[in-house]
Amino acid sequence: MELAVLGAGSWGTALSMVLADNGHTVRLWGQRKEQIAEINEKRTNEKYLPGISLPEGIVGYSSLGDALNGMETVVLAVPTKAIRDVLRKVRACIQTPITIVSVSKGIEPDTHKRISEVIEEEMGPLLTDVVILSGPSHAEEVSLRHPTTVTVSAKNMEAAERIQDLFMNPHYFRVYTNPDLIGVEIGGALKNIIALAAGITDGLGYGDNAKAALMTRGLAEIARLGCALGANPLTFSGLTGIGDLIVTCTSVHSRNWRAGNMLGKGKPLAEVLENMGMVVEGVRTTKAAYQLAKKLGVKMPITEVLYDVLFNGKDPKEGADSLMARVKTHEMEDLVNILGK
Amino acid sequence: MELAVLGAGSWGTALSMVLADNGHTVRLWGQRKEQIAEINEKRTNEKYLPGISLPEGIVGYSSLGDALNGMETVVLAVPTKAIRDVLRKVRACIQTPITIVSVSKGIEPDTHKRISEVIEEEMGPLLTDVVILSGPSHAEEVSLRHPTTVTVSAKNMEAAERIQDLFMNPHYFRVYTNPDLIGVEIGGALKNIIALAAGITDGLGYGDNAKAALMTRGLAEIARLGCALGANPLTFSGLTGIGDLIVTCTSVHSRNWRAGNMLGKGKPLAEVLENMGMVVEGVRTTKAAYQLAKKLGVKMPITEVLYDVLFNGKDPKEGADSLMARVKTHEMEDLVNILGK
Repeated sequence: MELAVLGAGSWGTALSMVLADNGHTVRLWGQRKEQIAEINEKRTNEKYLPGISLPEGIVGYSSLGDALNGMETVVLAVPTKAIRDVLRKVRACIQTPITIVSVSKGIEPDTHKRISEVIEEEMGPLLTDVVILSGPSHAEEVSLRHPTTVTVSAKNMEAAERIQDLFMNPHYFRVYTNPDLIGVEIGGALKNIIALAAGITDGLGYGDNAKAALMTRGLAEIARLGCALGANPLTFSGLTGIGDLIVTCTSVHSRNWRAGNMLGKGKPLAEVLENMGMVVEGVRTTKAAYQLAKKLGVKMPITEVLYDVLFNGKDPKEGADSLMARVKTHEMEDLVNILGK
Repeated sequence: MELAVLGAGSWGTALSMVLADNGHTVRLWGQRKEQIAEINEKRTNEKYLPGISLPEGIVGYSSLGDALNGMETVVLAVPTKAIRDVLRKVRACIQTPITIVSVSKGIEPDTHKRISEVIEEEMGPLLTDVVILSGPSHAEEVSLRHPTTVTVSAKNMEAAERIQDLFMNPHYFRVYTNPDLIGVEIGGALKNIIALAAGITDGLGYGDNAKAALMTRGLAEIARLGCALGANPLTFSGLTGIGDLIVTCTSVHSRNWRAGNMLGKGKPLAEVLENMGMVVEGVRTTKAAYQLAKKLGVKMPITEVLYDVLFNGKDPKEGADSLMARVKTHEMEDLVNILGK
């Protein structure tokens, strides 16, 4: 089969490799002409996947219209912030509906829409199905063909199963399905908040005990918000919940963790964001989750403290200490709130 | 208040420091006379907590009878394997019932008893209450007064709350209560199995994606067994479940992770256990959990593969690959089994 992957960053390229390994032909689209030339001529994408040689089945495209021409399945791997813009261009290129597989994570500030909702809104009748692919997966490791598991979800489970078959590779890439679209998207988006917070406690030198506690309590508040939105609480115990949280919080590959780490070490936010040179998705998501929690009346103490650190100039150490000093509680009472909402 | 802590290893000593910081007098008992002399004279316990100076409130005892004399609350911090032996000696020293706070983790092979059950059996009418203290807590970090959270549980929640008050420190040691004694004990014991397995995948060089997947699926099978034994599934989402699992699987401090790591790198089991020079609790627990899962008809694929690696000479790489290659599934079906059992 032939399909298009939009976005030639590390994740779009690594997923193209999985598809090519499975015998598919992949049209990998990126905006920068030199990068596409490098992909087609040298079979590399050095900036995003250094040292990796790309399999034959990947063909680079710098024209969006050419990449989409005749394609029924399109993988969308662009930064969350760019999604609406790219989709408007996609719409202008196609005449018949397509299935979109989204691999980006986040919630839109102000509208509080999940990615699948943004895609539905932008594509209207030009969309057959939207499938979300999410889970604990550093692109670098996938490109090295290290064993990786992810989950796909959609309103229409037949579409999800079709995408499962496209990506499933018996040697290194295992794909589960989960019908809980809301839970899968919320888990993937909100883990970036906890990764930022985990980076801060690491930057403060608080150690592994504090970080494990933060991740545990963080997962509980993610689940609380997710369930208020209609998610199944079990999803947060799965690959797109705790699995993705673990990989994001415990790896130095994570941009969100690195940004938090610099904040914890005392660097001002503006300087941190400038230093990163890439999108720190967790900053936007913190704002969206904070607004959403207020609107729905859900308690999210870690998100609230992080919001004050990011947007109200609160001292990170003071914030971390205030989380620690809360009155003693029954752990179970807190956890029951997850299901009780 | 004055109380006894039995076991002057790293965890017993670190918990004695918390109690001393809270203004209590602690009788810290250990078998080795030179170690107790070091604690009393130099205020250090270099072998177990190098570079740490012990607070005033800790007094070392090498006589068990003297340490227990007049004490109503006794913290038991000895290796799981030694518990029955130590309790028989305790019984011989006391005339009136005591409350025991157990901080050791494991399940007894063959009897499949939890630690609290072993303590009840050994102590009989000489026991007032048994309270379990568990959670994500490296002793080294507690001794450095890094922020740490743990959970206490007991059949009698008033006893648990009394122990919560003893240990709670507003600056660095936060104690939750949870009435689910079975869940707290099973989570603490079985995470060592997953730590061994995580060490193996790390030793094989499989990367963070594989490890996060292993931990996620590992938690699911721990919860499955726990629920079959009567635990509340929510407990496995808490500090003594996912929290302790994270800290044990992601830290090089963990003995179980280190043992698994050597196995993954191709060292034979006998050599690994000899190299460690300390108890690798996960090896015993794997046997107990394997037997228990068979008896109860609970599916525990990771535990089964690990059992074959440890006791039937299965190749670790072959074992890890067989976990990866299972047929495609709905993630949710697997997770629903947790609650469905």
